[in-house]
Amino acid sequence: MAKNKKLPQAPGRFAYDGLDRIIHEKARLGIVTSLATHPLGLVFTDLKDLCALTDGNLSRHLQILLEAGLVEVWKGTRNNRPQTLCRLTDEGRRRFLEYISVLENVVTDALAGKPAAGDQSMIEGWSPA
Amino acid sequence: MAKNKKLPQAPGRFAYDGLDRIIHEKARLGIVTSLATHPLGLVFTDLKDLCALTDGNLSRHLQILLEAGLVEVWKGTRNNRPQTLCRLTDEGRRRFLEYISVLENVVTDALAGKPAAGDQSMIEGWSPA
Repeated sequence: MAKNKKLPQAPGRFAYDGLDRIIHEKARLGIVTSLATHPLGLVFTDLKDLCALTDGNLSRHLQILLEAGLVEVWKGTRNNRPQTLCRLTDEGRRRFLEYISVLENVVTDALAGKPAAGDQSMIEGWSPA
Repeated sequence: MAKNKKLPQAPGRFAYDGLDRIIHEKARLGIVTSLATHPLGLVFTDLKDLCALTDGNLSRHLQILLEAGLVEVWKGTRNNRPQTLCRLTDEGRRRFLEYISVLENVVTDALAGKPAAGDQSMIEGWSPA
């Protein structure tokens, strides 16, 4: 390996700035993805089951998504019971698709990095910290 | 839409339990992906630049990854200067590839959910919350 080797990639190459933190949080990623796959919306209880969240957790995350303008929440009735319907806004869908395109980049980067056998061998001249 | 419609998908369908929170955090996802694409390891300063992190932030996240057994840190010299070399452990690589396979599922789910035109129309009988 040459001395003074230049970094082979641009600074920030793995910063993934497009990973919107509002969407990236694990529970919210589940909520937003399930809403993205149900364009007509999901009632609260179905969304809760699909994402395996508690009432409290789902409410809390929906509030964050609502404040960020990514979801809209509607009140109505279904089967004579009051229900809450959640949907992505147009803005939410747009930002989600942007986010997903960055995720695709992460997956592409990751799969490009599968090492050949033996790459994990000890490097001469280095010792455990 | 039929009354008492069953949820079309299994409970927890969008829980994405495989999204390991240690790896999922945005900065650590960048660190782990950059290490995955550099099987021989990266010195601290290069890793910092690639991930656009400060010294303190990178140190903090490396400590978390080290404690979780996902990375290993080595001391040595390069160009006559003391350097710190960071690499994924075998366990780290295995868990990262598991994580990436879940990300691929998220992307697949997301792209399956692209709506047809007009799906975002108001639904009769519901009102804004």
